Amino acid sequence: MIIDCHGHYTTAPKALEAFREKQLAAAKDKAALPAPGDLKIPDDAIRVSVEQAQLKLQRERGTDLTIFSPRASAMGHHLGSERASHDWSRLCNDMIRRVCDLFPKNFIGVCQLPQYPGAPPKNSIKELERCVNELGFIGCNLNPDPSGGYWTDPPLTDKWWYPIYEKMAELDVPAMVHVSASCNPNFHATGAHYINADTTAFMQFLTSDLFKDFPTLKFIIPHGGGAAPYHWGRYRGLAQDMKRPPLKELLLNNVFFDTCVYHQPGIDLLLKVVPADNILFASEMVGAVRGVDPETGHYYDDTKRYIDQAAISAADKAKIFEGNARRVFPRFKAA
Amino acid sequence: MIIDCHGHYTTAPKALEAFREKQLAAAKDKAALPAPGDLKIPDDAIRVSVEQAQLKLQRERGTDLTIFSPRASAMGHHLGSERASHDWSRLCNDMIRRVCDLFPKNFIGVCQLPQYPGAPPKNSIKELERCVNELGFIGCNLNPDPSGGYWTDPPLTDKWWYPIYEKMAELDVPAMVHVSASCNPNFHATGAHYINADTTAFMQFLTSDLFKDFPTLKFIIPHGGGAAPYHWGRYRGLAQDMKRPPLKELLLNNVFFDTCVYHQPGIDLLLKVVPADNILFASEMVGAVRGVDPETGHYYDDTKRYIDQAAISAADKAKIFEGNARRVFPRFKAA
Repeated sequence: MIIDCHGHYTTAPKALEAFREKQLAAAKDKAALPAPGDLKIPDDAIRVSVEQAQLKLQRERGTDLTIFSPRASAMGHHLGSERASHDWSRLCNDMIRRVCDLFPKNFIGVCQLPQYPGAPPKNSIKELERCVNELGFIGCNLNPDPSGGYWTDPPLTDKWWYPIYEKMAELDVPAMVHVSASCNPNFHATGAHYINADTTAFMQFLTSDLFKDFPTLKFIIPHGGGAAPYHWGRYRGLAQDMKRPPLKELLLNNVFFDTCVYHQPGIDLLLKVVPADNILFASEMVGAVRGVDPETGHYYDDTKRYIDQAAISAADKAKIFEGNARRVFPRFKAA
Repeated sequence: MIIDCHGHYTTAPKALEAFREKQLAAAKDKAALPAPGDLKIPDDAIRVSVEQAQLKLQRERGTDLTIFSPRASAMGHHLGSERASHDWSRLCNDMIRRVCDLFPKNFIGVCQLPQYPGAPPKNSIKELERCVNELGFIGCNLNPDPSGGYWTDPPLTDKWWYPIYEKMAELDVPAMVHVSASCNPNFHATGAHYINADTTAFMQFLTSDLFKDFPTLKFIIPHGGGAAPYHWGRYRGLAQDMKRPPLKELLLNNVFFDTCVYHQPGIDLLLKVVPADNILFASEMVGAVRGVDPETGHYYDDTKRYIDQAAISAADKAKIFEGNARRVFPRFKAA
């Protein structure tokens, strides 16, 4: 079985986006927010929205199941109000549940959280519980920068975040560290903000004792870990200069990387420096890069090809394609 | 000849740091700033400060000349006041000149600029002119985020920066894109802020027409280009999705990467995806990582070893070690 641990519902029916626009306009005018119950999207619209996109690509590329979450760039935690973020998160998570109900063999759910700049992460606990206990989701996406590019909330290793970690540990669900869009003109969303957030989270973990406090907590750093594997020597050296334990001991029981790296040399580097136990197959399709690489004749984000072609053992490939996802998402089995 | 294009004066005499502390305390209290002329550092103190550090490492590692600039983390553009930043930059640049005077075969100068959050980059022109015309420097370090981690100034591709680019073009000097310390608790300086800034600048360049406006302008993105080479497929794909020209055509006449990547697999990736014409040898010594890699028994930042061992032609090595630096820093010859 080939499990893609990182897919977003980037192809949702337009009505969802229209609701969001209406909601943000209301929040801006301090008017009454539209009622989520007023949004009616028929099953057929959902079916069509994935049939010609994610499902088609799964079939074409030979992957089986996607761990599926709402569109990351649309989480927009920095927009509207905290209340709007709550409504929007519930709505987006419910859409994921509906996709999973329609195609239970192809998708399993991960939720977005109703974060908001300056709002305590504990305010997201209720939605996390609902998604795991009621909707059967197996993980969450956690935004390390709800401000959308100004980084005004505390680092992920600050006690500010501990209530949500306590709940994650209790529910036994991991988080993918994933920012949303950037409202800072310095940062292109998928080309800078995403990658920077990955690198930033990795370094925050490296300098903290978070995993002494939460030995079972697990994070997936997407997009191949940002810059971390490319600068693995730098990070090993920084840890050493700070008299921290080696990275393997310090982080690798709790921190995992996905394979959203869109060329063979990048994947080869990742597989070379990071132990196979810490790598989860992912493509982020349909996502950040949608074209065909003229150098290969294949989609940039058809990352399965890079793993297939990599010079690693069949046992390591099996871990990356399936075993690690089952281990990092313990609720996978139950779901 | 082996030219290291990225070295900072991280070992300057303590008196320099003490001056800065006094200056920042005065700026905080809105008191009169200390006069730069009051700082007296004898030549011998300077001699000692590099003899057992940069010079020793040059000899041990077999490099010849370092393109040398003030300590990046101490530029602290976000601290004090704009006036303090001017005094401090002059002082730091003068120290570089003195090092170059004492060891003219080993060092050639690059300046820091008196940037300050919200202050127009044109305010840095005078110091750039002084450094190039009077001190014989061949380039500058340009901080893309004078706020120190909040990214509140416009992107490097905004017309806000054009006056300094006009002067750089006129003087025929390149800039290394280099942030200073981070005052944002989210960002470890050398482990996140530096690398993020590199990635950010690369993506800013990718999405703009800056080099149509300034065809001769040259930037070095340090630390191996941040995350850019590791995600080269992502960047090729993003450019393609945006209907931009291929990266080579779009950026590689103007954008260069250094080799401050502290392990062999990282350097191998860089050399594989980025043309040799766009890579400049650098170590950042004495800098971010100071230890010995237990996996190799050699200093992490002894980057010459990685290039020596890389599977590229002697002609490409010659470009990386020398030719490209002479081309990217046209004033090298004159100096």
